[in-house]
Amino acid sequence: MVPEARYTVPADEQLDAAYARALADGARPDVLERMKGGVTAVVGILKGSMPGPTVAFRFDMDAVPVQETDDPKHLPNMNNFRSHYPGVMHSCAHDAHTAIGLTLASKMADRNFAGVLKLIFQPAEEGVGGGARSIAEKGLVDDVSMIYCCHLTAGVEPGIIVGNMNYLATTKMEAVFHGKAAHAAGSPEKGRNALLGAASALLNIHAIPPYSKNETRVNVGILQGGTASNVVPDKARMVIETRAVTTKVNEELVERVKAIVKGSAEMHQLGHEIKIIGSAGSIIGDEKAVEIAFDAAKSLGYHTYIKEYDAPGSEDASFLIQRVQECGGKGTYLAVGSRIPNPHHSANFDIDEVALPRLTDLLWQVAMKILG
Amino acid sequence: MVPEARYTVPADEQLDAAYARALADGARPDVLERMKGGVTAVVGILKGSMPGPTVAFRFDMDAVPVQETDDPKHLPNMNNFRSHYPGVMHSCAHDAHTAIGLTLASKMADRNFAGVLKLIFQPAEEGVGGGARSIAEKGLVDDVSMIYCCHLTAGVEPGIIVGNMNYLATTKMEAVFHGKAAHAAGSPEKGRNALLGAASALLNIHAIPPYSKNETRVNVGILQGGTASNVVPDKARMVIETRAVTTKVNEELVERVKAIVKGSAEMHQLGHEIKIIGSAGSIIGDEKAVEIAFDAAKSLGYHTYIKEYDAPGSEDASFLIQRVQECGGKGTYLAVGSRIPNPHHSANFDIDEVALPRLTDLLWQVAMKILG
Amino acid sequence: MVPEARYTVPADEQLDAAYARALADGARPDVLERMKGGVTAVVGILKGSMPGPTVAFRFDMDAVPVQETDDPKHLPNMNNFRSHYPGVMHSCAHDAHTAIGLTLASKMADRNFAGVLKLIFQPAEEGVGGGARSIAEKGLVDDVSMIYCCHLTAGVEPGIIVGNMNYLATTKMEAVFHGKAAHAAGSPEKGRNALLGAASALLNIHAIPPYSKNETRVNVGILQGGTASNVVPDKARMVIETRAVTTKVNEELVERVKAIVKGSAEMHQLGHEIKIIGSAGSIIGDEKAVEIAFDAAKSLGYHTYIKEYDAPGSEDASFLIQRVQECGGKGTYLAVGSRIPNPHHSANFDIDEVALPRLTDLLWQVAMKILG
Amino acid sequence: MVPEARYTVPADEQLDAAYARALADGARPDVLERMKGGVTAVVGILKGSMPGPTVAFRFDMDAVPVQETDDPKHLPNMNNFRSHYPGVMHSCAHDAHTAIGLTLASKMADRNFAGVLKLIFQPAEEGVGGGARSIAEKGLVDDVSMIYCCHLTAGVEPGIIVGNMNYLATTKMEAVFHGKAAHAAGSPEKGRNALLGAASALLNIHAIPPYSKNETRVNVGILQGGTASNVVPDKARMVIETRAVTTKVNEELVERVKAIVKGSAEMHQLGHEIKIIGSAGSIIGDEKAVEIAFDAAKSLGYHTYIKEYDAPGSEDASFLIQRVQECGGKGTYLAVGSRIPNPHHSANFDIDEVALPRLTDLLWQVAMKILG
Repeated sequence: MVPEARYTVPADEQLDAAYARALADGARPDVLERMKGGVTAVVGILKGSMPGPTVAFRFDMDAVPVQETDDPKHLPNMNNFRSHYPGVMHSCAHDAHTAIGLTLASKMADRNFAGVLKLIFQPAEEGVGGGARSIAEKGLVDDVSMIYCCHLTAGVEPGIIVGNMNYLATTKMEAVFHGKAAHAAGSPEKGRNALLGAASALLNIHAIPPYSKNETRVNVGILQGGTASNVVPDKARMVIETRAVTTKVNEELVERVKAIVKGSAEMHQLGHEIKIIGSAGSIIGDEKAVEIAFDAAKSLGYHTYIKEYDAPGSEDASFLIQRVQECGGKGTYLAVGSRIPNPHHSANFDIDEVALPRLTDLLWQVAMKILG
Repeated sequence: MVPEARYTVPADEQLDAAYARALADGARPDVLERMKGGVTAVVGILKGSMPGPTVAFRFDMDAVPVQETDDPKHLPNMNNFRSHYPGVMHSCAHDAHTAIGLTLASKMADRNFAGVLKLIFQPAEEGVGGGARSIAEKGLVDDVSMIYCCHLTAGVEPGIIVGNMNYLATTKMEAVFHGKAAHAAGSPEKGRNALLGAASALLNIHAIPPYSKNETRVNVGILQGGTASNVVPDKARMVIETRAVTTKVNEELVERVKAIVKGSAEMHQLGHEIKIIGSAGSIIGDEKAVEIAFDAAKSLGYHTYIKEYDAPGSEDASFLIQRVQECGGKGTYLAVGSRIPNPHHSANFDIDEVALPRLTDLLWQVAMKILG
Repeated sequence: MVPEARYTVPADEQLDAAYARALADGARPDVLERMKGGVTAVVGILKGSMPGPTVAFRFDMDAVPVQETDDPKHLPNMNNFRSHYPGVMHSCAHDAHTAIGLTLASKMADRNFAGVLKLIFQPAEEGVGGGARSIAEKGLVDDVSMIYCCHLTAGVEPGIIVGNMNYLATTKMEAVFHGKAAHAAGSPEKGRNALLGAASALLNIHAIPPYSKNETRVNVGILQGGTASNVVPDKARMVIETRAVTTKVNEELVERVKAIVKGSAEMHQLGHEIKIIGSAGSIIGDEKAVEIAFDAAKSLGYHTYIKEYDAPGSEDASFLIQRVQECGGKGTYLAVGSRIPNPHHSANFDIDEVALPRLTDLLWQVAMKILG
Repeated sequence: MVPEARYTVPADEQLDAAYARALADGARPDVLERMKGGVTAVVGILKGSMPGPTVAFRFDMDAVPVQETDDPKHLPNMNNFRSHYPGVMHSCAHDAHTAIGLTLASKMADRNFAGVLKLIFQPAEEGVGGGARSIAEKGLVDDVSMIYCCHLTAGVEPGIIVGNMNYLATTKMEAVFHGKAAHAAGSPEKGRNALLGAASALLNIHAIPPYSKNETRVNVGILQGGTASNVVPDKARMVIETRAVTTKVNEELVERVKAIVKGSAEMHQLGHEIKIIGSAGSIIGDEKAVEIAFDAAKSLGYHTYIKEYDAPGSEDASFLIQRVQECGGKGTYLAVGSRIPNPHHSANFDIDEVALPRLTDLLWQVAMKILG
């Protein structure tokens, strides 16, 4: 990983606590040592017995800050494998993805194939925090001929496969306005009101026009400022996101947001900073990649094949797929059903476990179609 | 006290903890029992041996949430009487006022005077939280002929007395906007954005015009809303204050603020609440009351007599003085110097202790001029 | 026509002047008399010699307020048939539509067909001002089995036909804020500032969120208010439009706009009015109607058949087509090419005249396919 | 006059028309020739027979754009001296000031005094358009020892004299925002919306905080922008004014306004211009100047002497008085009553003519007290 390419890294104390916890849970100290500072990506490279192309699969591993349900009917509670840790839960199937990746590795361990298999275990997908970006920038997928980034999807039949999720390109930003406090009654003219700047920015960011022929979105999700009723607010902080069908239009939105934040600050003689805290590009899957996956799915009893789906969210797999494409390879995102209809990121999220061997087999067949 | 007339009462846990602390510090359980629920005002009534008018003095007792300095040169540190409790400090001289009140009581204990002395020990003056209001509404000053509410003033010579502080009438409000969360990319149209309402309210509250022939102020001191970059904010909270030279104009400002909050909420189909969390009226002292105090001051060596001072702040003594005036009595605010120039509410605030006997003597002479 | 169903009617003086001009240009006084007050729609009904279904064609007739070019290469200048009147021009082909309608009438005059032909000559299509609405509300198309509303399209080959223009539903509104003037320095508090309300409304209207799965648009196209630098503005006027793929979502946008205007007015204790000055629904053409038209087009050498086109504009033909559909009939919009690439509403707009007999023949064939 | 120091000069056609009208009305062509281009100030210098100080009086001469009333009871109608020209009227007594100046000149024509008398006839006082500024910058009052700028005041007894009008310093500005038009439905993203910038500026200008210990005012009196409901507005124009007790604070307000306009424009990538179209400083009259005038008034039967009056308006006499003071002289503004209570700038404004000889005599006595 390129550490600088990560957008958001936990505070040192948090990293240290996680490190200690992993050690206490029995992790190998020599391996842990190499992951210090949150550099936790793992790329497994399996060279086949014959020369051939390189195939990569991406498995994201990170959890989400959700407290797992106490509901006794929740399978992880019945079978006693719920999260040990309070406020942290695998509520988006990334543990399943990791298990699939490891099983796939053992299935391919005989190396009886022509080419190279790369299994990418990625941290920090949630919040598009830079996990994929820091792997891509390291050059780890530059030699890849074909990459697949997969996701289990709750509430969808295991027999359904979606070949190309048109995720939106997105950027998350944090803007801070710096003003000057003053007594609001005694000398209001000496203050520089950070909340006047922030409120103007908020209204105007939401007033950025929609783009024709391109779904676009902006949102100021958080605004916080001021300290007391009788003090001119000297600081305000906003969290903003933009999204668009294409990376290029998303970048235009980011420029517009920056201009609005800057102009709003200057209106009231405020200082300001704007920092990118997450991003993902759009994903345009290659037809060839989808075709291979659908062929593989056919022999496994998948019954529904959706070529394109307009996903309203974002995924930083974009960094890996785009890098492969820039280097001459191909790739696509793949989503497959895992049935249980509790929403992703909810406290009672779960997958139907039948999806585990199914997706493992699918990826194995995909790999063998290319490397076999 | 009329408990409902208090604007802001600490949470039950806080009250319970303070109760337990007082008990542990040796407070009499039977007295404490009567103060349960934060009803901590004390009014001492001393009847003279002869009939006559009723004179009242107000002493506020509450501390401020400030961590007292560790500076070894700070007198309370040198003489070991700094605050025992972290994050709470007598940083506005209210402990001195209380001491003066108690000393005055002992000086008058012989009851060799004609009339009645009322010593009012008031909680919750800070933040104009309703301490004085809840005492006034109880009717405790309805029979008072003359009331004085006093304050020691840092950085001013002990020889200076100010006869009438033209405090501004003020109202503090908390407004909450209730919207509806929605995924900001997936279905923004299903959301009702509380921050759009709050930001519009903020700008428009600050755009309330100034009043001719009347110093007016508005301030939105705090704005907080939203939860995450990709969620349409469903809640926002603002803390607002208004001030004006007269109570009437302040009430007009409050009406304007309410109309703006309501209109802003309706613009975006938001629910809203607006709650008054503090208030004080303007104070117009009676000339006769000032005259008596100045006469008393003369014999004590005060050298500077300021009849009127435009104070940019507010004081809920207004509730007591105004109630007395409505019932046919007279009164005024009085400020006297206490020299040490560290600002009120700062971590190293202190008074020159010479001010203690001086102000006690002044009040004693004032009382005797009326009751003697 | 139902006169009340028109959104915008010219002022009496303008109507009188147009009336006088028509008289001077040789219009029949008895016909003119029946059009007084701008009631200028004409519906021709041709009954065939045999009973059968009713087919209707809509031809719009109105001009646009554009000054026709002086360019000597502009065909109407070369052949001396440019607009006689300054500032008024047939810059959107409605004169061609009218000519086609009249020619079609003469072609069908032998009445050798089974059923009824209705030729609707419509005013006030531009600005979706209510021309079609006032005809539909009169019930004039309630008995129609099949309706076609056609338009020549500049810059597109005469051999191209578009079967269904997905026009956006739209509403145009005028909002007026009524405040109270006051001297901005002498007594600003006595004013009620209409521009504060209007500016807040403007920002918040533009901040209405986009709708998922539905192209939406809002625009405040005009804002005017205030009289002098030293007067609190007592009046402001805004012109607003909304658009959406469906009529239902457009109506939701209108409700949001109304809530914002009302809330903004109430914020500053302003009166307000909001008036609809134009509207059109979305148009969803019937497949059967498109099919008949495409069949007819084939025999005339049209070479390109586009079933659906997402038009970013709006058309009040929606009122006629929707009324027919509500009464059990079918219909569609049809656009056909007329080649010359100067944009509609430009000073040098023109059509290739070959389009005139082509579209006439097309409509004739369509009519005969149904009535023949 | 320094022509460049004028803020607002009528358009050439207007100047030419006024020139022609003056010629037709019998003005001397050689004098008119020297006033071409609106350079219409006249300064008369009368040297006394003995040396001595220089005394100046300012008389403003300009009319206001008001249509004089037709009311037969209006004295100018009864005596047939109402304004000959439609839409222009002497509705602020400047014709009276001019008459007084000329009469004073004739009274002093014997030159039997010690020193110099300067009679300044000033154009463009209304709207603080730069008349006084262009005279001051020419250096015409640099040698003046004592200057008086006078005004008759409607609705006030002729026996009342006000010695010092505390006019507010003021600046009038015109701001223009330049955006880019685009079809609001077809390609909103290509537009740059001038009205979004202007509306943000308007709200934020009104949100500039009041100044402690200094009456301040801001007002956006006019906002106009946009062309049609379906076009992204490409231009918006605002007229803004600021006022403050002191020239320095007024200049701070102007800087704040400029920052807000600039920031608002940059938010939406708009161009902008901001132009000063009028200004006046504050006026601080000298006590000595007031004293002399009051002494003179006493002998003429004035009965009320007001030393200071907080006038909520502004006057560009400030440029003349301040220039004299900077050069070591003294001066003051003087207002005297003229009784008839119709407001200044109204269609039925008038003065009681008894005020004419009274004010003439007053100024003569003032002059003689200094020069006699």
